[in-house]
Amino acid sequence: MKKIEDYIISIPDFPKEGIIFRDVTGVLDSSDGLQLAVSKMNELLDGVDYNVIAGAESRGFIFGTPLAYINKKKFVPIRKKGKLPRETVSRSYALEYGTAEIEIHKDSVKKGDKVVLVDDLIATGGTMEAAAKLIEELGGEVVKMIFLIELSDLGGRKVLADYDIASVVQYEGE
Amino acid sequence: MKKIEDYIISIPDFPKEGIIFRDVTGVLDSSDGLQLAVSKMNELLDGVDYNVIAGAESRGFIFGTPLAYINKKKFVPIRKKGKLPRETVSRSYALEYGTAEIEIHKDSVKKGDKVVLVDDLIATGGTMEAAAKLIEELGGEVVKMIFLIELSDLGGRKVLADYDIASVVQYEGE
Repeated sequence: MKKIEDYIISIPDFPKEGIIFRDVTGVLDSSDGLQLAVSKMNELLDGVDYNVIAGAESRGFIFGTPLAYINKKKFVPIRKKGKLPRETVSRSYALEYGTAEIEIHKDSVKKGDKVVLVDDLIATGGTMEAAAKLIEELGGEVVKMIFLIELSDLGGRKVLADYDIASVVQYEGE
Repeated sequence: MKKIEDYIISIPDFPKEGIIFRDVTGVLDSSDGLQLAVSKMNELLDGVDYNVIAGAESRGFIFGTPLAYINKKKFVPIRKKGKLPRETVSRSYALEYGTAEIEIHKDSVKKGDKVVLVDDLIATGGTMEAAAKLIEELGGEVVKMIFLIELSDLGGRKVLADYDIASVVQYEGE
């Protein structure tokens, strides 16, 4: 029986020397890998009380929508600046070089909504922190964040210390 | 019983005067809407013989992965230039202003693969034409293209005349 780790392709020195890139496309590239990833992420939602799943463009869409579909929840896309056609709230956050800005439709999260944030991978946690703040700005509560892959040494859990985080696979020492 | 059309939000004069933007986020913004959209798109696959689902970043991921998951197929992400970590083939295509470039991992489609391309919306067909050519370059066959929304007057079917196309909802006269 293959494990998730067996589907993740590790690429040394990408995007730069000394970094091992964990490539999630290896999981998608097999029907068994996709089944396993979605079911393992879904197990992380056992016992969680929530009514919304949200994910950030574009890799957050990959696992966010199957999880919303199988759990009969709505899916809220968080997108890069300028992509959503209706009224939004937006937030900038720091990248290694420069900043990025994401936004969310103002009417997509309501006061009292219990939101699960989904992404393929957590590294420094910057995108997820900005996403959570957008949800909170609209009156929602982030009740859980789930990831397929966690790069444990990059500080994501520290940045997101206020949140309940779970991941399927953890990599350390990089 | 609500229909898909009831979930699609029409935004006049976006992104410019005279254009009615059909906003798919209204479908996602309801658990019933998402269930209905995925099941209606899935009906378009009845009787289709295929082994791969592919979708282009980022809205092609939204319906592509649930469909791959429920049909136990692999999912091939087609991404904007520079996002995929392994060896790719890429292709440029024309936009209204300028060009865009998409790429696909070289090993993600194999000779003889029967591929279904999924997207939320077909307008001019430019992205889907480029995506199909990438799949064919790798030896795959595009056996079907399915869309939630079709803007019938924008010429997509003409551009994609070589392919078998189906959509859930069609809008004309814009």
